[in-house]
Amino acid sequence: MARIAILTLPGFNEIDSLVALRMLSRTEGLDAFLAGPEREVVSGCGVPCTISGTMDDIAAADAVVVGSGRYTADFAADTAFMAALKLDSRRQLIASQCSGALLLARLGLLDGLPVCTDNLTRPAVENLGLRVTGETMVVHGNVATVGGCLAAQNLATWLLLRLAGEAETRRALAYVVPVGEAESYTENLIATVQAADPAVLDAARAAANA
Amino acid sequence: MARIAILTLPGFNEIDSLVALRMLSRTEGLDAFLAGPEREVVSGCGVPCTISGTMDDIAAADAVVVGSGRYTADFAADTAFMAALKLDSRRQLIASQCSGALLLARLGLLDGLPVCTDNLTRPAVENLGLRVTGETMVVHGNVATVGGCLAAQNLATWLLLRLAGEAETRRALAYVVPVGEAESYTENLIATVQAADPAVLDAARAAANA
Repeated sequence: MARIAILTLPGFNEIDSLVALRMLSRTEGLDAFLAGPEREVVSGCGVPCTISGTMDDIAAADAVVVGSGRYTADFAADTAFMAALKLDSRRQLIASQCSGALLLARLGLLDGLPVCTDNLTRPAVENLGLRVTGETMVVHGNVATVGGCLAAQNLATWLLLRLAGEAETRRALAYVVPVGEAESYTENLIATVQAADPAVLDAARAAANA
Repeated sequence: MARIAILTLPGFNEIDSLVALRMLSRTEGLDAFLAGPEREVVSGCGVPCTISGTMDDIAAADAVVVGSGRYTADFAADTAFMAALKLDSRRQLIASQCSGALLLARLGLLDGLPVCTDNLTRPAVENLGLRVTGETMVVHGNVATVGGCLAAQNLATWLLLRLAGEAETRRALAYVVPVGEAESYTENLIATVQAADPAVLDAARAAANA
Protein backbone atom coordinates (compact mmCIF):
# COMPACT_ATOMS: atom_id res chain seq x y z
CA MET A 1 0.00 0.00 0.00
CA ALA A 2 1.49 3.34 -1.07
CA ARG A 3 0.68 6.16 1.32
CA ILE A 4 0.24 9.68 -0.04
CA ALA A 5 0.28 12.54 2.46
CA ILE A 6 -1.26 15.83 1.34
CA LEU A 7 0.26 18.66 3.40
CA THR A 8 -2.69 20.82 4.37
CA LEU A 9 -1.91 24.01 6.29
CA PRO A 10 -4.18 26.68 7.77
CA GLY A 11 -5.54 28.82 4.91
CA PHE A 12 -5.06 25.94 2.46
CA ASN A 13 -6.33 26.09 -1.11
CA GLU A 14 -9.27 23.68 -1.26
CA ILE A 15 -8.67 22.69 -4.88
CA ASP A 16 -5.03 21.78 -4.24
CA SER A 17 -5.68 19.51 -1.26
CA LEU A 18 -9.04 18.01 -2.09
CA VAL A 19 -8.87 17.35 -5.83
CA ALA A 20 -5.73 15.34 -5.12
CA LEU A 21 -7.38 13.54 -2.19
CA ARG A 22 -10.42 12.55 -4.21
CA MET A 23 -8.54 11.55 -7.37
CA LEU A 24 -6.08 9.42 -5.39
CA SER A 25 -8.71 7.76 -3.21
CA ARG A 26 -10.41 5.45 -5.68
CA THR A 27 -7.43 3.26 -6.53
CA GLU A 28 -6.64 0.02 -4.74
CA GLY A 29 -3.16 0.07 -3.31
CA LEU A 30 -3.13 3.82 -2.70
CA ASP A 31 -3.99 5.47 0.62
CA ALA A 32 -4.24 9.26 0.40
CA PHE A 33 -4.84 11.47 3.43
CA LEU A 34 -4.55 15.09 4.56
CA ALA A 35 -1.68 15.79 6.95
CA GLY A 36 -0.08 18.72 8.70
CA PRO A 37 1.09 20.27 11.95
CA GLU A 38 -2.39 21.32 13.10
CA ARG A 39 -5.30 18.98 13.67
CA GLU A 40 -7.99 21.61 13.02
CA VAL A 41 -7.45 23.95 10.09
CA VAL A 42 -9.62 26.50 8.34
CA SER A 43 -9.35 26.51 4.55
CA GLY A 44 -8.61 29.61 2.50
CA CYS A 45 -12.34 30.08 1.84
CA GLY A 46 -13.21 29.60 5.50
CA VAL A 47 -14.20 25.94 5.83
CA PRO A 48 -13.03 24.37 9.13
CA CYS A 49 -11.64 20.86 8.48
CA THR A 50 -10.04 18.14 10.60
CA ILE A 51 -6.74 16.73 9.38
CA SER A 52 -5.93 13.08 10.12
CA GLY A 53 -2.19 12.87 9.40
CA THR A 54 0.77 14.29 11.32
CA MET A 55 4.17 15.64 10.29
CA ASP A 56 5.59 12.21 11.14
CA ASP A 57 3.11 10.65 8.71
CA ILE A 58 4.42 13.02 6.03
CA ALA A 59 8.01 11.95 6.74
CA ALA A 60 6.99 8.28 6.49
CA ALA A 61 4.80 8.60 3.38
CA ASP A 62 5.69 7.21 -0.05
CA ALA A 63 4.54 10.41 -1.71
CA VAL A 64 3.84 13.94 -0.47
CA VAL A 65 1.69 16.62 -2.07
CA VAL A 66 2.52 20.15 -0.93
CA GLY A 67 -0.42 22.37 -1.74
CA SER A 68 -0.64 26.13 -1.63
CA GLY A 69 -2.45 28.44 0.73
CA ARG A 70 -2.71 31.91 2.14
CA TYR A 71 0.12 31.52 4.60
CA THR A 72 2.56 29.24 2.76
CA ALA A 73 5.22 31.97 2.59
CA ASP A 74 4.92 32.44 6.36
CA PHE A 75 5.32 28.70 6.95
CA ALA A 76 8.38 28.69 4.67
CA ALA A 77 9.90 31.28 7.03
CA ASP A 78 8.92 29.36 10.19
CA THR A 79 12.04 27.58 11.40
CA ALA A 80 10.23 25.18 13.73
CA PHE A 81 7.76 24.15 11.04
CA MET A 82 10.46 23.69 8.41
CA ALA A 83 12.51 21.56 10.81
CA ALA A 84 9.48 19.27 11.21
CA LEU A 85 8.89 19.03 7.44
CA LYS A 86 11.07 16.04 6.57
CA LEU A 87 11.00 15.20 2.87
CA ASP A 88 13.41 12.89 1.09
CA SER A 89 13.30 12.81 -2.70
CA ARG A 90 15.45 9.66 -2.79
CA ARG A 91 12.62 7.55 -1.36
CA GLN A 92 9.54 9.77 -1.75
CA LEU A 93 7.67 11.27 -4.69
CA ILE A 94 7.26 14.96 -3.88
CA ALA A 95 4.90 17.31 -5.69
CA SER A 96 4.20 20.96 -5.04
CA GLN A 97 1.37 23.07 -6.24
CA CYS A 98 1.62 26.86 -6.69
CA SER A 99 3.05 28.43 -3.51
CA GLY A 100 3.90 24.96 -2.20
CA ALA A 101 7.07 25.42 -4.29
CA LEU A 102 8.30 27.89 -1.65
CA LEU A 103 8.44 25.06 0.89
CA LEU A 104 10.30 22.71 -1.46
CA ALA A 105 12.71 25.53 -2.36
CA ARG A 106 13.41 26.22 1.30
CA LEU A 107 14.32 22.53 1.75
CA GLY A 108 16.72 22.76 -1.19
CA LEU A 109 14.69 20.28 -3.22
CA LEU A 110 14.47 22.64 -6.21
CA ASP A 111 18.12 23.74 -6.33
CA GLY A 112 19.19 24.18 -9.94
CA LEU A 113 15.83 22.98 -11.30
CA PRO A 114 13.23 24.83 -13.39
CA VAL A 115 10.07 25.35 -11.36
CA CYS A 116 6.35 25.67 -12.05
CA THR A 117 4.16 27.84 -9.87
CA ASP A 118 1.25 30.25 -10.17
CA ASN A 119 1.63 33.80 -11.42
CA LEU A 120 1.11 35.35 -7.98
CA THR A 121 3.86 33.22 -6.39
CA ARG A 122 6.25 33.55 -9.33
CA PRO A 123 8.15 36.65 -8.08
CA ALA A 124 8.77 35.04 -4.67
CA VAL A 125 10.19 31.90 -6.30
CA GLU A 126 12.35 33.97 -8.65
CA ASN A 127 13.64 35.99 -5.67
CA LEU A 128 15.09 32.71 -4.38
CA GLY A 129 17.22 32.54 -7.53
CA LEU A 130 15.07 29.86 -9.17
CA ARG A 131 13.80 29.89 -12.74
CA VAL A 132 10.03 29.66 -13.27
CA THR A 133 9.20 28.13 -16.64
CA GLY A 134 5.61 29.31 -17.12
CA GLU A 135 4.60 25.73 -17.96
CA THR A 136 1.89 23.83 -16.10
CA MET A 137 4.12 21.01 -14.85
CA VAL A 138 7.78 20.12 -14.67
CA VAL A 139 9.25 16.91 -13.25
CA HIS A 140 12.84 16.11 -12.30
CA GLY A 141 13.42 12.67 -10.88
CA ASN A 142 10.99 12.27 -8.00
CA VAL A 143 10.12 15.96 -7.69
CA ALA A 144 7.26 17.62 -9.57
CA THR A 145 6.04 21.21 -9.45
CA VAL A 146 2.82 22.48 -11.02
CA GLY A 147 1.17 25.89 -11.35
CA GLY A 148 -2.51 26.88 -11.33
CA CYS A 149 -4.94 25.26 -8.87
CA LEU A 150 -6.68 23.21 -11.54
CA ALA A 151 -3.32 21.62 -12.34
CA ALA A 152 -4.17 19.57 -9.26
CA GLN A 153 -5.57 17.09 -11.77
CA ASN A 154 -2.18 16.88 -13.56
CA LEU A 155 -0.40 16.40 -10.27
CA ALA A 156 -2.79 13.64 -9.19
CA THR A 157 -2.46 11.97 -12.59
CA TRP A 158 1.34 12.05 -12.22
CA LEU A 159 1.13 10.31 -8.84
CA LEU A 160 -1.33 7.74 -10.20
CA LEU A 161 0.96 6.95 -13.13
CA ARG A 162 4.09 6.69 -10.99
CA LEU A 163 2.49 4.75 -8.13
CA ALA A 164 -0.21 2.63 -9.77
CA GLY A 165 0.60 2.41 -13.51
CA GLU A 166 -1.34 3.42 -16.57
CA ALA A 167 -4.17 0.87 -16.42
CA GLU A 168 -5.09 1.83 -12.84
CA THR A 169 -4.70 5.51 -13.73
CA ARG A 170 -7.24 5.19 -16.53
CA ARG A 171 -9.64 3.39 -14.19
CA ALA A 172 -9.29 6.14 -11.57
CA LEU A 173 -9.70 8.95 -14.11
CA ALA A 174 -12.89 7.37 -15.47
CA TYR A 175 -14.61 8.29 -12.18
CA VAL A 176 -13.75 11.97 -12.33
CA VAL A 177 -13.42 13.28 -15.90
CA PRO A 178 -16.28 15.26 -17.47
CA VAL A 179 -18.50 12.57 -19.01
CA GLY A 180 -19.03 14.18 -22.39
CA GLU A 181 -15.32 14.47 -23.17
CA ALA A 182 -14.10 11.50 -21.15
CA GLU A 183 -11.74 10.06 -23.75
CA SER A 184 -10.05 13.26 -24.91
CA TYR A 185 -9.81 14.58 -21.36
CA THR A 186 -8.16 11.38 -20.13
CA GLU A 187 -5.74 11.22 -23.07
CA ASN A 188 -4.81 14.86 -22.58
CA LEU A 189 -4.07 14.43 -18.88
CA ILE A 190 -1.89 11.37 -19.52
CA ALA A 191 -0.11 12.99 -22.47
CA THR A 192 0.63 16.12 -20.43
CA VAL A 193 2.24 14.05 -17.69
CA GLN A 194 4.19 11.91 -20.18
CA ALA A 195 5.52 15.09 -21.79
CA ALA A 196 6.68 16.39 -18.40
CA ASP A 197 8.13 13.16 -16.98
CA PRO A 198 10.51 10.98 -19.03
CA ALA A 199 10.09 8.15 -16.49
CA VAL A 200 6.36 7.99 -17.19
CA LEU A 201 6.93 8.12 -20.94
CA ASP A 202 9.55 5.36 -20.75
CA ALA A 203 7.15 3.17 -18.78
CA ALA A 204 4.42 3.71 -21.39
CA ARG A 205 6.82 2.81 -24.21
CA ALA A 206 8.05 -0.29 -22.39
CA ALA A 207 4.44 -1.40 -21.83
CA ALA A 208 3.61 -0.81 -25.50
CA ASN A 209 6.58 -2.96 -26.56
CA ALA A 210 5.95 -5.73 -24.03
CA MET B 1 -24.21 40.66 -3.68
CA ALA B 2 -25.29 37.34 -5.20
CA ARG B 3 -25.26 34.47 -2.70
CA ILE B 4 -24.40 30.97 -3.91
CA ALA B 5 -25.22 28.07 -1.58
CA ILE B 6 -23.40 24.79 -2.19
CA LEU B 7 -25.49 21.95 -0.76
CA THR B 8 -23.00 19.75 1.07
CA LEU B 9 -24.35 16.55 2.59
CA PRO B 10 -22.64 13.85 4.68
CA GLY B 11 -20.44 11.75 2.39
CA PHE B 12 -20.14 14.65 -0.07
CA ASN B 13 -17.80 14.55 -3.04
CA GLU B 14 -14.97 16.96 -2.24
CA ILE B 15 -14.40 18.00 -5.84
CA ASP B 16 -18.05 18.92 -6.37
CA SER B 17 -18.39 21.13 -3.31
CA LEU B 18 -14.93 22.65 -3.02
CA VAL B 19 -13.90 23.36 -6.61
CA ALA B 20 -17.12 25.36 -6.90
CA LEU B 21 -16.50 27.12 -3.58
CA ARG B 22 -12.96 28.13 -4.52
CA MET B 23 -13.75 29.18 -8.10
CA LEU B 24 -16.72 31.28 -6.97
CA SER B 25 -14.92 32.92 -4.04
CA ARG B 26 -12.55 35.26 -5.82
CA THR B 27 -15.11 37.44 -7.54
CA GLU B 28 -16.41 40.66 -6.05
CA GLY B 29 -20.17 40.62 -5.80
CA LEU B 30 -20.39 36.86 -5.27
CA ASP B 31 -20.61 35.17 -1.88
CA ALA B 32 -20.29 31.38 -2.07
CA PHE B 33 -20.68 29.12 0.97
CA LEU B 34 -21.30 25.49 1.91
CA ALA B 35 -24.78 24.76 3.25
CA GLY B 36 -26.84 21.80 4.38
CA PRO B 37 -28.99 20.23 7.07
CA GLU B 38 -26.06 19.15 9.25
CA ARG B 39 -23.47 21.47 10.75
CA GLU B 40 -20.70 18.85 10.94
CA VAL B 41 -20.29 16.55 7.97
CA VAL B 42 -17.68 14.01 6.95
CA SER B 43 -16.73 14.06 3.27
CA GLY B 44 -16.76 10.98 1.06
CA CYS B 45 -13.03 10.52 1.59
CA GLY B 46 -13.36 10.94 5.35
CA VAL B 47 -12.54 14.60 6.02
CA PRO B 48 -14.69 16.14 8.79
CA CYS B 49 -15.81 19.65 7.79
CA THR B 50 -18.00 22.34 9.32
CA ILE B 51 -20.76 23.78 7.15
CA SER B 52 -21.77 27.41 7.64
CA GLY B 53 -25.09 27.65 5.79
CA THR B 54 -28.50 26.22 6.65
CA MET B 55 -31.38 24.88 4.58
CA ASP B 56 -33.00 28.30 4.97
CA ASP B 57 -29.88 29.88 3.48
CA ILE B 58 -30.28 27.55 0.51
CA ALA B 59 -33.90 28.62 0.05
CA ALA B 60 -32.87 32.30 0.17
CA ALA B 61 -29.80 32.01 -2.08
CA ASP B 62 -29.58 33.46 -5.60
CA ALA B 63 -27.95 30.26 -6.85
CA VAL B 64 -27.68 26.73 -5.50
CA VAL B 65 -25.12 24.05 -6.38
CA VAL B 66 -26.27 20.53 -5.59
CA GLY B 67 -23.21 18.29 -5.45
CA SER B 68 -23.03 14.54 -5.34
CA GLY B 69 -22.07 12.19 -2.55
CA ARG B 70 -22.26 8.69 -1.17
CA TYR B 71 -25.73 9.07 0.25
CA THR B 72 -27.46 11.38 -2.22
CA ALA B 73 -29.93 8.67 -3.26
CA ASP B 74 -30.84 8.14 0.40
CA PHE B 75 -31.40 11.87 0.88
CA ALA B 76 -33.59 11.93 -2.25
CA ALA B 77 -35.78 9.30 -0.53
CA ASP B 78 -35.85 11.19 2.80
CA THR B 79 -39.20 12.96 2.99
CA ALA B 80 -38.23 15.33 5.79
CA PHE B 81 -35.02 16.38 4.05
CA MET B 82 -36.75 16.88 0.71
CA ALA B 83 -39.46 18.99 2.36
CA ALA B 84 -36.72 21.26 3.72
CA LEU B 85 -34.96 21.55 0.34
CA LYS B 86 -36.76 24.54 -1.14
CA LEU B 87 -35.52 25.43 -4.60
CA ASP B 88 -37.24 27.77 -7.04
CA SER B 89 -35.94 27.90 -10.60
CA ARG B 90 -37.94 31.06 -11.31
CA ARG B 91 -35.73 33.14 -9.03
CA GLN B 92 -32.67 30.92 -8.47
CA LEU B 93 -29.97 29.46 -10.69
CA ILE B 94 -29.84 25.77 -9.84
CA ALA B 95 -27.02 23.43 -10.83
CA SER B 96 -26.56 19.77 -10.03
CA GLN B 97 -23.48 17.65 -10.30
CA CYS B 98 -23.58 13.88 -10.86
CA SER B 99 -25.94 12.27 -8.30
CA GLY B 100 -27.17 15.73 -7.29
CA ALA B 101 -29.51 15.31 -10.29
CA LEU B 102 -31.51 12.80 -8.21
CA LEU B 103 -32.45 15.60 -5.80
CA LEU B 104 -33.47 17.98 -8.59
CA ALA B 105 -35.48 15.19 -10.24
CA ARG B 106 -37.28 14.47 -6.99
CA LEU B 107 -38.29 18.14 -6.80
CA GLY B 108 -39.66 17.97 -10.36
CA LEU B 109 -37.08 20.45 -11.63
CA LEU B 110 -35.93 18.14 -14.43
CA ASP B 111 -39.35 17.06 -15.71
CA GLY B 112 -39.22 16.66 -19.48
CA LEU B 113 -35.62 17.86 -19.69
CA PRO B 114 -32.49 16.02 -20.87
CA VAL B 115 -30.12 15.46 -17.95
CA CYS B 116 -26.37 15.16 -17.43
CA THR B 117 -24.98 12.94 -14.69
CA ASP B 118 -22.10 10.54 -14.09
CA ASN B 119 -22.09 7.00 -15.44
CA LEU B 120 -22.69 5.42 -12.02
CA THR B 121 -25.80 7.52 -11.37
CA ARG B 122 -27.14 7.24 -14.92
CA PRO B 123 -29.33 4.13 -14.36
CA ALA B 124 -31.01 5.69 -11.32
CA VAL B 125 -31.83 8.86 -13.27
CA GLU B 126 -33.13 6.83 -16.21
CA ASN B 127 -35.29 4.78 -13.81
CA LEU B 128 -37.09 8.04 -13.01
CA GLY B 129 -38.12 8.27 -16.66
CA LEU B 130 -35.56 10.95 -17.51
CA ARG B 131 -33.23 10.96 -20.51
CA VAL B 132 -29.48 11.17 -19.81
CA THR B 133 -27.63 12.75 -22.72
CA GLY B 134 -24.07 11.57 -22.03
CA GLU B 135 -22.85 15.16 -22.48
CA THR B 136 -20.86 17.03 -19.83
CA MET B 137 -23.37 19.85 -19.32
CA VAL B 138 -26.90 20.74 -20.29
CA VAL B 139 -28.77 23.94 -19.37
CA HIS B 140 -32.47 24.74 -19.61
CA GLY B 141 -33.48 28.17 -18.39
CA ASN B 142 -32.07 28.52 -14.89
CA VAL B 143 -31.35 24.82 -14.36
CA ALA B 144 -28.04 23.18 -15.26
CA THR B 145 -26.91 19.58 -14.81
CA VAL B 146 -23.36 18.32 -15.29
CA GLY B 147 -21.68 14.91 -15.13
CA GLY B 148 -18.19 13.92 -13.95
CA CYS B 149 -16.67 15.51 -10.83
CA LEU B 150 -14.17 17.57 -12.78
CA ALA B 151 -17.11 19.18 -14.60
CA ALA B 152 -17.28 21.21 -11.37
CA GLN B 153 -15.17 23.72 -13.29
CA ASN B 154 -17.81 23.96 -16.05
CA LEU B 155 -20.56 24.39 -13.48
CA ALA B 156 -18.63 27.14 -11.67
CA THR B 157 -17.87 28.85 -14.99
CA TRP B 158 -21.59 28.78 -15.83
CA LEU B 159 -22.47 30.46 -12.53
CA LEU B 160 -19.70 33.03 -13.01
CA LEU B 161 -20.96 33.87 -16.51
CA ARG B 162 -24.60 34.11 -15.46
CA LEU B 163 -23.99 36.02 -12.22
CA ALA B 164 -20.92 38.15 -12.91
CA GLY B 165 -20.51 38.42 -16.70
CA GLU B 166 -17.70 37.44 -19.02
CA ALA B 167 -15.07 39.99 -17.94
CA GLU B 168 -15.32 38.98 -14.27
CA THR B 169 -15.40 35.31 -15.28
CA ARG B 170 -12.11 35.67 -17.13
CA ARG B 171 -10.58 37.45 -14.14
CA ALA B 172 -11.73 34.65 -11.79
CA LEU B 173 -10.53 31.87 -14.10
CA ALA B 174 -7.07 33.45 -14.36
CA TYR B 175 -6.48 32.48 -10.71
CA VAL B 176 -7.24 28.81 -11.17
CA VAL B 177 -6.43 27.55 -14.68
CA PRO B 178 -3.21 25.58 -15.28
CA VAL B 179 -0.62 28.30 -16.00
CA GLY B 180 0.96 26.72 -19.07
CA GLU B 181 -2.30 26.45 -20.99
CA ALA B 182 -4.13 29.40 -19.42
CA GLU B 183 -5.54 30.89 -22.61
CA SER B 184 -6.77 27.70 -24.29
CA TYR B 185 -8.11 26.33 -21.00
CA THR B 186 -10.08 29.52 -20.33
CA GLU B 187 -11.45 29.73 -23.88
CA ASN B 188 -12.47 26.08 -23.75
CA LEU B 189 -14.36 26.47 -20.47
CA ILE B 190 -16.22 29.54 -21.72
CA ALA B 191 -16.97 27.96 -25.11
CA THR B 192 -18.31 24.81 -23.46
CA VAL B 193 -20.71 26.84 -21.33
CA GLN B 194 -21.77 29.02 -24.28
CA ALA B 195 -22.52 25.87 -26.26
CA ALA B 196 -24.68 24.53 -23.43
CA ASP B 197 -26.52 27.74 -22.50
CA PRO B 198 -28.12 29.96 -25.17
CA ALA B 199 -28.54 32.75 -22.60
CA VAL B 200 -24.77 32.91 -22.07
CA LEU B 201 -24.13 32.83 -25.81
CA ASP B 202 -26.69 35.61 -26.43
CA ALA B 203 -25.04 37.77 -23.75
CA ALA B 204 -21.63 37.25 -25.39
CA ARG B 205 -23.02 38.19 -28.83
CA ALA B 206 -24.78 41.28 -27.43
CA ALA B 207 -21.53 42.37 -25.75
CA ALA B 208 -19.58 41.83 -28.98
CA ASN B 209 -22.08 44.00 -30.90
CA ALA B 210 -22.29 46.75 -28.26
